[in-house]
Amino acid sequence: MVLETIHSPKDLKSLTKEGLQQVVDEARQALLEKTSRHGGHNGPNFGIVEMTVALHYVFNSPIDKFIFDVSHQSYVHKMLTGRVQAFLDPAHYDDVSGYTNPKESEHDLFTVGHTSTSLALASGVAKARDLKKESYNVIAIIGDGSLSGGQAYEGLNQIATTGSNTLIIVNDNDQSIAANPRGGIYTALRNLRESKGQAADNLFKALGYDYHYLDEGNDLNRLIQLFQEVKDADHPVLLHIHTVKGKGYKPAEENREAFHAGGPFNLETGEYLSDGNGGASYNSVTADLIMDKMKQDPTVVAINAGTPMLLFNQEERKKVGDQFVDVGIAEQEAATMTTGLAKNGAKPIWAVFSTFMQRTYDQLSHDMALNNQAGTILVYGASVSSMNDESHLGFFDIPFLAHIPNFVYLAPTNKEEHLAMLDWAIEQEEHPVAIRIPVGPLKETGIADKTDYSILNKNQVIQKGSQVALFGLGNFYGLAEDVAKELAAKHNIKATIVNPKFITGLDKELLDSLAADHQLVVTLEDGVLEGGYGQMIAGYLGDSPLKVQNYGIEKAYHDRYDRKQILVDNGISVNNLVKNILKDL
Amino acid sequence: MVLETIHSPKDLKSLTKEGLQQVVDEARQALLEKTSRHGGHNGPNFGIVEMTVALHYVFNSPIDKFIFDVSHQSYVHKMLTGRVQAFLDPAHYDDVSGYTNPKESEHDLFTVGHTSTSLALASGVAKARDLKKESYNVIAIIGDGSLSGGQAYEGLNQIATTGSNTLIIVNDNDQSIAANPRGGIYTALRNLRESKGQAADNLFKALGYDYHYLDEGNDLNRLIQLFQEVKDADHPVLLHIHTVKGKGYKPAEENREAFHAGGPFNLETGEYLSDGNGGASYNSVTADLIMDKMKQDPTVVAINAGTPMLLFNQEERKKVGDQFVDVGIAEQEAATMTTGLAKNGAKPIWAVFSTFMQRTYDQLSHDMALNNQAGTILVYGASVSSMNDESHLGFFDIPFLAHIPNFVYLAPTNKEEHLAMLDWAIEQEEHPVAIRIPVGPLKETGIADKTDYSILNKNQVIQKGSQVALFGLGNFYGLAEDVAKELAAKHNIKATIVNPKFITGLDKELLDSLAADHQLVVTLEDGVLEGGYGQMIAGYLGDSPLKVQNYGIEKAYHDRYDRKQILVDNGISVNNLVKNILKDL
Repeated sequence: MVLETIHSPKDLKSLTKEGLQQVVDEARQALLEKTSRHGGHNGPNFGIVEMTVALHYVFNSPIDKFIFDVSHQSYVHKMLTGRVQAFLDPAHYDDVSGYTNPKESEHDLFTVGHTSTSLALASGVAKARDLKKESYNVIAIIGDGSLSGGQAYEGLNQIATTGSNTLIIVNDNDQSIAANPRGGIYTALRNLRESKGQAADNLFKALGYDYHYLDEGNDLNRLIQLFQEVKDADHPVLLHIHTVKGKGYKPAEENREAFHAGGPFNLETGEYLSDGNGGASYNSVTADLIMDKMKQDPTVVAINAGTPMLLFNQEERKKVGDQFVDVGIAEQEAATMTTGLAKNGAKPIWAVFSTFMQRTYDQLSHDMALNNQAGTILVYGASVSSMNDESHLGFFDIPFLAHIPNFVYLAPTNKEEHLAMLDWAIEQEEHPVAIRIPVGPLKETGIADKTDYSILNKNQVIQKGSQVALFGLGNFYGLAEDVAKELAAKHNIKATIVNPKFITGLDKELLDSLAADHQLVVTLEDGVLEGGYGQMIAGYLGDSPLKVQNYGIEKAYHDRYDRKQILVDNGISVNNLVKNILKDL
Repeated sequence: MVLETIHSPKDLKSLTKEGLQQVVDEARQALLEKTSRHGGHNGPNFGIVEMTVALHYVFNSPIDKFIFDVSHQSYVHKMLTGRVQAFLDPAHYDDVSGYTNPKESEHDLFTVGHTSTSLALASGVAKARDLKKESYNVIAIIGDGSLSGGQAYEGLNQIATTGSNTLIIVNDNDQSIAANPRGGIYTALRNLRESKGQAADNLFKALGYDYHYLDEGNDLNRLIQLFQEVKDADHPVLLHIHTVKGKGYKPAEENREAFHAGGPFNLETGEYLSDGNGGASYNSVTADLIMDKMKQDPTVVAINAGTPMLLFNQEERKKVGDQFVDVGIAEQEAATMTTGLAKNGAKPIWAVFSTFMQRTYDQLSHDMALNNQAGTILVYGASVSSMNDESHLGFFDIPFLAHIPNFVYLAPTNKEEHLAMLDWAIEQEEHPVAIRIPVGPLKETGIADKTDYSILNKNQVIQKGSQVALFGLGNFYGLAEDVAKELAAKHNIKATIVNPKFITGLDKELLDSLAADHQLVVTLEDGVLEGGYGQMIAGYLGDSPLKVQNYGIEKAYHDRYDRKQILVDNGISVNNLVKNILKDL
């Protein structure tokens, strides 16, 4: 095996073309085996094997600087930069992250997991080089999907304006097939592909780029030739390279949405091993309710920014037609379009992962909240128990969203409550509303929730007790119940249990009433502690006789953590809570 | 006067071309008189008089929907939609805001003050129209400056993809003159202007637009003709219209940077009445220090996103040359470019208004903080006592920024401290650092600050007292001193006075020590209360014997408020503080 002998990019330089092709073949085989067993971003990596080998053959990393957009397509890059065992040996599969990571290698410049940032990063790296009067290539590799993000366009502008060496590689694997063909960047790229780069109006040339098109983006020799031609240019160059997503694995080439990323799959059939367990989940009941609404009301419309599977599968999207809008990986557009839709009388619902919602603070504040428009935002993965890559953490949402005026942010604790909140959010016309979709198995009470959610900030007292009041927010409501059980069983204390429901405001009447027969308020939230829900309560009760204990996660970029351990590390266990509560009583 | 007889756009319809021209002339004269006496966005409005009259003559607002980007160019629109007295009668000058405002008129769809949002708003308004199967024109008016923001590009993509009636008017008043001519959107626009819309590569056509160019954008008749041609189109249309910024007022045409916005000016000479008081300010000492650094170190580089005057004037920018980068109105690019610069060994300093920093949460978190890059961010106007339009509030910065891991956010209280923090921030290589530039007159101690700011979260105890500890953060440090004086003079209480300096973390050692001889901790912050600094302290001290009182501003979009009154309304006065403190002792 040649691949195993590549310990750094230097080892590629001495290979013949045949040797390089063998590296390509072996790398693709390793990808297939690892992703089929272990899961990961399969399709994007299959398509970029030749390009990655060619890049490392022609350029000299780490002197030349590679910046991979999103960086979920950096697996082959990792293989060629000293980390091949993480792709060959199942015992080492978890040695590397799914993204570039400077802690792993000097060949990885940045920790990246969100899209459309590579050009801005490259513009800074290149500018620093120029200020230092150094000389080398700065190379950003960006997919066509990532080009739909506004930040990519800002980067295109800045690199062109700076005017010095920067190589932008648009890895175009034809996402436009999924998109509407009437206009926009995907149409522009398609026109360029179909004309082999000769289309009359060229966006990149318009911005001043030295533009080159390569149709055979999985042809190693042509890639090498092209890179050699543009290496060391004294100006910005844009290479538009057409690759095949999923290249070399037929199921991935044919089903590109499924083979963007996923868990383990059957190599022979191309079927995911755990594809759909059939059971109801918070995601499925959410989708069902929205689908029903859409049938009844043509102004109900779902907005999505590049993660359509979050709400509907392909078939469902087809069914709802114009009532589903995928704006591309353009969260700012999604948030502000939601505002415009609501203003003009539609009922928009934007489904978004918490970690990507972070791209829209000003759109949520200056557009949606300042104009107080009644759109609904579904916030997925806002939990310590969701994605656990440091680049994809979803638990900063409360300090992020809860202090924006006018917003109503809701934390349901079971299916019936969630659906009642969702129904209310869609139909009301008074407030921008966000719902923190619960993470974990579906909990059903079997009793419809008749709460009037237009009465804002009204907490629900589930059990009236004394001494200690437990505020269990959203996903941590069950923990409050467990603590109460333990206090009752072992210490003869009947705790008050509160389901706050509302994150964006306090039930002051309830809080004021607690001092009469309580000594302690405990807040539990499935998110970062600083700037969160509990601290609002601590501030409100600061000069009352009540003591307050806040529980949540300490702010930090926790990486690939054990989801149970991080709770324990932050003092969040029934035992520790009971112990600390007893101290204050 | 014809203008006074225009109570709604309908009144324009019956006018002859001569009558319309008279409206144009009278509107321009009214603009000149109001802005010269009262201040405001002068240049952008002078340039768009003819266009606004033509738009309201041809289209039918409010059935047809106008959306003005940033909306600081909507003065003439306001004159034609029932609000002319606010431009003719000095007694009514303050009746209208400087931006579109639905509370003023049904002709104003949105409250807008930040750039590049109009296309996303229009995409939503048009989509809602389509879902409701209604028929009218949706028209977005966007300046060339605003087109540099990535959100505008996302909107261009979405409108083109939707494919139904939307009219985008690019009001091109040639900001590219200030920009670097080597590439990017300003170059693309310039090429189109110089070729009268015929340039070989047309960005807008590439995105699928039906593109029209008009060079005589201040010619009323040509504007009317063009609008009539494209009215009621069944597809997206982009009109690229070349106007003259400051049109009709020579000083404004000649000095476009100064005549973008400003206070009252002398109509005859074109000189601003209060242009530069010559005294030192926090802004001037900041600029001086950075200028010195730049001379000593070629890797010190200032980044700016479309507000260059914040740091350096034109002459100073010329002097520092390549060490100043204006990325356009593209805050995301600024934040992430700062990250790239720091990673590759430069010393970047990004100067930004707090209200515009809101556009970069994910860039500050996922790019700068996750990668822990040592750039410096200067946050201007983060105070209740800064801009007071509801669209431009700068006091949400602490919940926004302070809970992002790795960031060090500093709150200086005087000149020497500020300069010491700034010097440290630029030279250190450990953390992303933001500095909350003080708002208000420069306070000097005359004693150089020798604090080692690498010891994070170390608060400074200015006076050691007992009973009550006053934490006066940044701009509110002086208030803490005033309260302490009153407590000493009237109540014989020697309060402890603390200058926290660090917003992003607590001095736990100090806080733990207070319980021995204090009953109360009071926090004072010049910003929103919820999710702020004080609540972190309240959370930390929640189960200590100490009581805590937090003072700040209640979250809301306060509009054109009286800066002293809002403090009083939020309980922030020496008298009220003393009264509340005495209650808890």
